[in-house]
Amino acid sequence: MSGSLPQALEALIAELGKLPGVGRRSAERMAFALLAAPADRADALAIAVRRVHDEVGLCPVCGAYTDAGRCPICDDPARDRSVVCVVETPLDVVSFERAGGYRGLYHVLGGVLSPLKGVTPADLRVGELERRLDGGAINELILATSPGVEGDATAIWLTQRLAARGLRLTRIGRGLPMGGSLEHADGGTLRLALEGRRPVDG
Amino acid sequence: MSGSLPQALEALIAELGKLPGVGRRSAERMAFALLAAPADRADALAIAVRRVHDEVGLCPVCGAYTDAGRCPICDDPARDRSVVCVVETPLDVVSFERAGGYRGLYHVLGGVLSPLKGVTPADLRVGELERRLDGGAINELILATSPGVEGDATAIWLTQRLAARGLRLTRIGRGLPMGGSLEHADGGTLRLALEGRRPVDG
Repeated sequence: MSGSLPQALEALIAELGKLPGVGRRSAERMAFALLAAPADRADALAIAVRRVHDEVGLCPVCGAYTDAGRCPICDDPARDRSVVCVVETPLDVVSFERAGGYRGLYHVLGGVLSPLKGVTPADLRVGELERRLDGGAINELILATSPGVEGDATAIWLTQRLAARGLRLTRIGRGLPMGGSLEHADGGTLRLALEGRRPVDG
Repeated sequence: MSGSLPQALEALIAELGKLPGVGRRSAERMAFALLAAPADRADALAIAVRRVHDEVGLCPVCGAYTDAGRCPICDDPARDRSVVCVVETPLDVVSFERAGGYRGLYHVLGGVLSPLKGVTPADLRVGELERRLDGGAINELILATSPGVEGDATAIWLTQRLAARGLRLTRIGRGLPMGGSLEHADGGTLRLALEGRRPVDG
């Protein structure tokens, strides 16, 4: 039966299974739920999926997703325009904003350098970053690419490329996550935690 | 930012979040992935979601999802037509078929009796089941509604309703799942496991 599901159902399961974090079983549950729900629920999803590509674009300044023109963060007069946090993806901006506490701006690179995947500097929003820096208002770049070989290499490459500008270049802290236990941390995280040790305040 | 995402993106996150097992964070990851993917990936999903309601219907015999007419299981001459497994949903048929080993037919009730949710016998495919039984070829009904108050009540109600027909009426076995440990089983499962104990073979 698994191999003899209606073709349209198999097609939907296949498409849902391409979403991040969705395996075959989850995709099946979703597809059957969509089929069991009234047709207008499925219609609403189809319309929402279509609309998103038509209506959402990149902020011309920072590269985050936005409706039109500059994004609300770049447009917010209360944000600190002297600090820019450089991230890989638009979703990273959402993550930092949800975490709260950061009042600077962002710059979305659109990925990390990856010789294996053929991602070169030309594929990242580096020229856009340099034009922002040319404006002169930015004092610090926080390099917040993900910890790991490619994210680290991209941070180092950016550091070298921007070294002559006299900026403060920092890398996000690495180590044990909040609530994380030593027992469950992998070796890489433990090494980062040791390297990232700081004097105890007070 | 979480509150100031582009409206079309928020709409997509909301629709994805209605799928079973998808929380806000998962829906965000999916929506951002769809936005980052080429537009034709999103189109393929939208088309698949739309097609499924147009093209998939219920097998007029068993009530499983099928392309057209009788489903492949009802049409399979190799299946044992004397045994029918009565399940709640079309997805349950997929689960049993994947597990393998069962060679009889199915009957999808389309739910369970639930006074709280207003589900009465008239809402279930009981008349269809009785018409199949009238055909005379069926000797055993395996009542495979889920263990729990409503599934059990539905099984008991069906047993009483069909008692006069001289059928063999059985209930699926209940107890600890394969690989399940006593330590992690809830009390209800442990009680079912005790009630469902059997003599050791050999």
